[in-house]
Amino acid sequence: MRLAILGNGGFGTAMAIAELAAGHDVTVWGHDAEYTAAIARTRRNPRYLPDDLEIPSAIRFTARGEECLRGAQAVLVAVPTQHLRAVASGLRAAFPASAPVVSLAKGLEEGTALRPSRVLEGVLGSGRRVLALSGPSHAEEVARGLPATVVLAGEDAAAREAMQAALSTPALRIYGNSDLLGVELCGALKNVMAIAAGIADGLELGDNAKAAILSRGIVEMARFGVAEGAERETFFGLAGVGDLAVTAFSRHGRNRAFGERIGRGETMAAILASTRKVAEGVWTSRVVRDRARAVGVDMPLCAAVCAVLFEGVGARSAVGALMLRDRKQEASD
Amino acid sequence: MRLAILGNGGFGTAMAIAELAAGHDVTVWGHDAEYTAAIARTRRNPRYLPDDLEIPSAIRFTARGEECLRGAQAVLVAVPTQHLRAVASGLRAAFPASAPVVSLAKGLEEGTALRPSRVLEGVLGSGRRVLALSGPSHAEEVARGLPATVVLAGEDAAAREAMQAALSTPALRIYGNSDLLGVELCGALKNVMAIAAGIADGLELGDNAKAAILSRGIVEMARFGVAEGAERETFFGLAGVGDLAVTAFSRHGRNRAFGERIGRGETMAAILASTRKVAEGVWTSRVVRDRARAVGVDMPLCAAVCAVLFEGVGARSAVGALMLRDRKQEASD
Repeated sequence: MRLAILGNGGFGTAMAIAELAAGHDVTVWGHDAEYTAAIARTRRNPRYLPDDLEIPSAIRFTARGEECLRGAQAVLVAVPTQHLRAVASGLRAAFPASAPVVSLAKGLEEGTALRPSRVLEGVLGSGRRVLALSGPSHAEEVARGLPATVVLAGEDAAAREAMQAALSTPALRIYGNSDLLGVELCGALKNVMAIAAGIADGLELGDNAKAAILSRGIVEMARFGVAEGAERETFFGLAGVGDLAVTAFSRHGRNRAFGERIGRGETMAAILASTRKVAEGVWTSRVVRDRARAVGVDMPLCAAVCAVLFEGVGARSAVGALMLRDRKQEASD
Repeated sequence: MRLAILGNGGFGTAMAIAELAAGHDVTVWGHDAEYTAAIARTRRNPRYLPDDLEIPSAIRFTARGEECLRGAQAVLVAVPTQHLRAVASGLRAAFPASAPVVSLAKGLEEGTALRPSRVLEGVLGSGRRVLALSGPSHAEEVARGLPATVVLAGEDAAAREAMQAALSTPALRIYGNSDLLGVELCGALKNVMAIAAGIADGLELGDNAKAAILSRGIVEMARFGVAEGAERETFFGLAGVGDLAVTAFSRHGRNRAFGERIGRGETMAAILASTRKVAEGVWTSRVVRDRARAVGVDMPLCAAVCAVLFEGVGARSAVGALMLRDRKQEASD
């Protein structure tokens, strides 16, 4: 199948490599013409992937969206959440009318609090239904062909199963899930919790503390999700606890790494200026906090992350306040 | 309070340090008289804890169980599951009649498939009710006073709350849980899944694969637990997913480390001969597999671990078989 991938970040590029191996004809679009041309020429993507990772010559790279999308039978959108609207709006006319669109973004849009699939559906119009792919899938490992299991979420079973069959490879196992809302909230919220886990790393609190953050984080994520209408079960599956575990504990996690630098005392401005890797959880945390307040859901970890990032509260005192919360009985809500 | 701790392994010693800091009068018993005397003299426990970790002089160490237990107002039993019956039987007469007993063991007894609290209750008799403490609590971190949150499980609310109040410290937060069965099964089963995660590490499959094992492992654990009568919720709390995450991802985990050596091709006999640190999951895996077969619960990860450890199946082919299982829909059972 002709596959268009919008976004040449780590995961977009990794998916291009995986899907080429599955026999698809893959074209990747990147917004930065010069950098995209450099990838095409050098077969390397040093901003987002290790230097030793060679990108097969059969994958085409272009900065012209029309060229990428022309004739595509499916479109994977691997653009950071906060750029999703601008990218999709700019290329709207070029999206083939009947091609399924799969979002790979993990966040919530600032200002609207919309999930990626909703942003894309709003921009693309015509009743188009967007699917979402999520789960524990660090780009570097996917690019190297190591095994990963992910969730493809979509409300239309036939459309979902068709894409599941098309995108599955021996290394990339794809499970179907009808709870699109839950899967997208998992992807967005786990990045916030990963920042909290990273802050604990930066404060050198140890792995026991991080496991506590993970346990409480997943319960907090599920509580928010259920209030929004998602299935509780989704949060305890691959896209929820699976992705959160790897994001919180793996050396790869960029949200965790961001949190760690915060925990060590760096300022957010300094960190953001030092890297191109987007820690989606930074922006999502504030969206979630505001939404949680509006709907009356208690999210102490998310609130603590926001307090540290945006309100000048010290990391150690925010963590201390969390530890002192008087919760004597283990409970899920 | 006068606290007796049976077992001078890593966690027994760590709990002694934590509870001394909470103001208790702590005596630790060890079965090896010479080694126990060396701990008392050197204030170090090099078999189980880092050499730089000094044990406060106020903690008494003895190899005479009667001396440890005399006048104790509570007893913590930090003995490996497979030695629990022998230790408790030998010291039965010395257990103060009214002292609450808390098991810290994480396993199931070979031969009987009994949980630690049941083994202790059977040996101690007189209708004594045993509690269990479990959750993400690597010994080294607890010994250093780093924060940890754990679960104290017991069916009698008053007894549980009294011990919860007595054992809690500013660094060690203790949550209550009435699902003793579930909490003990979490502690036993997570070690089996941690071996599976370690095998994946040994095969260098990456963190995405390990997150998949964690996600499927927790579902498998919950399925077994529910069939045995435990609360599903318990498996998605601190003692379940929290402990599994840290056991599977942390450098500390001994079951994970054991699995990693298996994955690299070492034999079980060679590994067991090379370390005193007990990987409880080795013995628990077989108990669980047999019990799961008997009650008709599907446990593919546990079965794969047993096949590799006890039936000569190669690690890579066992993992390959797991990856090929045809499960297209994400589901909890």
